[in-house]
Amino acid sequence: MTESPRPETGITAPAGFRASGIRCGIRTDHSDLALLVSEREASAAAVFTRNLVQAAPVVLSRQALESSGGRAQAIVVNSGNANACTGDAGDLAARRTALELAELLDLPVDRVLVASTGVIGQQLPVDRLIDKLPRAIAELSREGGTRAAEAILTTDTCRKESVRRVESPAGAYTLGGMVKGSGMIHPDMATTLGFVTTDAVVPADELTTILRRATDRSFNRLTVDGDTSTNDMIAVLANGASGVTAELAGFEEALTELLVEMARAVARDGEGATRLITVRVTGAADEEDALAVARTVAGSLLVKTAVHGADANWGRIAAAAGRAGVALQPEALRVAINGLEVLAPGYASDFSEEEAAARVAADEVVLEVDLGAGDAEATTWTCDLTAGYIDINATYRT
Amino acid sequence: MTESPRPETGITAPAGFRASGIRCGIRTDHSDLALLVSEREASAAAVFTRNLVQAAPVVLSRQALESSGGRAQAIVVNSGNANACTGDAGDLAARRTALELAELLDLPVDRVLVASTGVIGQQLPVDRLIDKLPRAIAELSREGGTRAAEAILTTDTCRKESVRRVESPAGAYTLGGMVKGSGMIHPDMATTLGFVTTDAVVPADELTTILRRATDRSFNRLTVDGDTSTNDMIAVLANGASGVTAELAGFEEALTELLVEMARAVARDGEGATRLITVRVTGAADEEDALAVARTVAGSLLVKTAVHGADANWGRIAAAAGRAGVALQPEALRVAINGLEVLAPGYASDFSEEEAAARVAADEVVLEVDLGAGDAEATTWTCDLTAGYIDINATYRT
Repeated sequence: MTESPRPETGITAPAGFRASGIRCGIRTDHSDLALLVSEREASAAAVFTRNLVQAAPVVLSRQALESSGGRAQAIVVNSGNANACTGDAGDLAARRTALELAELLDLPVDRVLVASTGVIGQQLPVDRLIDKLPRAIAELSREGGTRAAEAILTTDTCRKESVRRVESPAGAYTLGGMVKGSGMIHPDMATTLGFVTTDAVVPADELTTILRRATDRSFNRLTVDGDTSTNDMIAVLANGASGVTAELAGFEEALTELLVEMARAVARDGEGATRLITVRVTGAADEEDALAVARTVAGSLLVKTAVHGADANWGRIAAAAGRAGVALQPEALRVAINGLEVLAPGYASDFSEEEAAARVAADEVVLEVDLGAGDAEATTWTCDLTAGYIDINATYRT
Repeated sequence: MTESPRPETGITAPAGFRASGIRCGIRTDHSDLALLVSEREASAAAVFTRNLVQAAPVVLSRQALESSGGRAQAIVVNSGNANACTGDAGDLAARRTALELAELLDLPVDRVLVASTGVIGQQLPVDRLIDKLPRAIAELSREGGTRAAEAILTTDTCRKESVRRVESPAGAYTLGGMVKGSGMIHPDMATTLGFVTTDAVVPADELTTILRRATDRSFNRLTVDGDTSTNDMIAVLANGASGVTAELAGFEEALTELLVEMARAVARDGEGATRLITVRVTGAADEEDALAVARTVAGSLLVKTAVHGADANWGRIAAAAGRAGVALQPEALRVAINGLEVLAPGYASDFSEEEAAARVAADEVVLEVDLGAGDAEATTWTCDLTAGYIDINATYRT
């Protein structure tokens, strides 16, 4: 039997995964049903939103992972409807989806994860979804990752796929990922929908620990608008198809890199965004301080609008740092924008406004804030805030 | 001597206060120097920004109140320049302003409060301000409150003045106020610039306690964009010119009402705002819970953009409540928009979308969230988020 070559990126880049993305009629404008199936049962782990208002599929998928002891073989995702705040009917819709898919694939129902994204508070037209499951299964392929990555998008303007290939002493293995999301995104509540596959062998317990740490260093450092979703989830499946048992430190490094790349892709495609903003805080007494300042600067609407206006407005950056709840010394602050120092300790910097404006006008803007208090650092990602964000959210019913 | 009639509102409505507002050349587009002088030394209290990056006048005015033991007789305010992040030169500029004014008015220097608002990180052209102090003094009048209220504005689109007349068993007295601010506003860090006068007799110690409580119930429940200023201050002067010693409970009630009215005025004039949003949370286990949910809903960009789009998007309100850090029961939530129930416990509400959209399209939108957990409640104020906010903040250097 001839196998087609593995795709270069996305969730079907690792061996032993097939995917599809089709239209099931929840949305009218693009595909809305994504399916991912591993050829064998995989170790599985997931992190979920910390929002107390949780969508039915979030509750169901968490239960499935507990019931299976961290094993899964299929993930079904719909866009266009979040199945959140939908009460008992919504719970039933998620359960019916999992049951139907498990039956069609001949799997235990707790090996199926379900995820939804889209409008909150409207009943999921679950019959349309279930009717199309056989078609989604028929279209599963080694190249299907890209179509799955398209089917999970909502207000995103582009597909987001990533890949990492790891050469370890035990052999080579691959990680692939897809993610959606550009609004209702804020750290510390997991994230938007993200799915990672790997053909490495990784036990479920370690997978959970590593996923939590890697998420903490990637999606939990991302903010677009400060709002957190009812549906956030990142799941990872490790099916072992490469036959390579991953050395855990190397796997964690690769997974973290993959998730950081995906988090940056989400920030770059933030609703209405025209610029990716990286906030790097250095010189903090400890990482917690660095992270608090980095998050506050990244969350500041005034910083985000200044970057949009290509205004090297370091005063807003300093003001955001000052309200981060960190005992910083204002006189010790140093701020640089894409490498140009705009604030030196003691408010003494002397820089060219034109040069600074040119640096803020770049596609990617790195805001560096040094607290002058120690050696700890942290990085967060966000995007500029534009009239496009307003347009999308004043008219789109999420 | 014939006294002109007292104005109906503003800081010169109470007896014994005179004010002026003139151009001193810091701004080119409108007046930028406000002066308030009491005919006699007054009890004084102030709350200041909790941002650690504090402007020179904030530091100086706090020191003055400490030094004088809560006594003041004059307040000088400039707009157009915040005198924040300006180092030693900025400190000197604030001190020179206070010294010059004290000398011209023949007052101890610690009886003068100084406030600034405007762009951060540029040196205050203090000589222009000082040169015009004699003119500001010459123009002091009983009707000058309105011109002072104009001179403190920045991106505000309208003057904000208030008044309360209190009839107490001991006699009648008046409170008057002015406030500026429409961006860089968030609770718990004091507020924007607000000044209150009263001709009641109120000892300084009680004035401080009462101002803190009244601010907690007014400006600390206001958010426009989540950013807090380096310059926030509310000061109150009680000069006793009415000869009436205020019964403290009645005074606190009147001051709270005055500050709530002024806070609502700031929200209504939030940068780019088209609608005032009141978030009222009821049925909470305690007031802290109620306030946490009310603040989170009021701070949600998705809620604020939905209101802008006249979208009765209760899912976003529920999602914001769910991330407020309060142990709420999602199934117990009830949400009403301008009196129309859009979410009943158990996600069961059935309402007309057209009716709901009409209610969100009102000038003032009251979002009621009942947690179904107790009897405590809290109210916060904000405004919708519009492309106007982006325009202002992408182009205006604060």
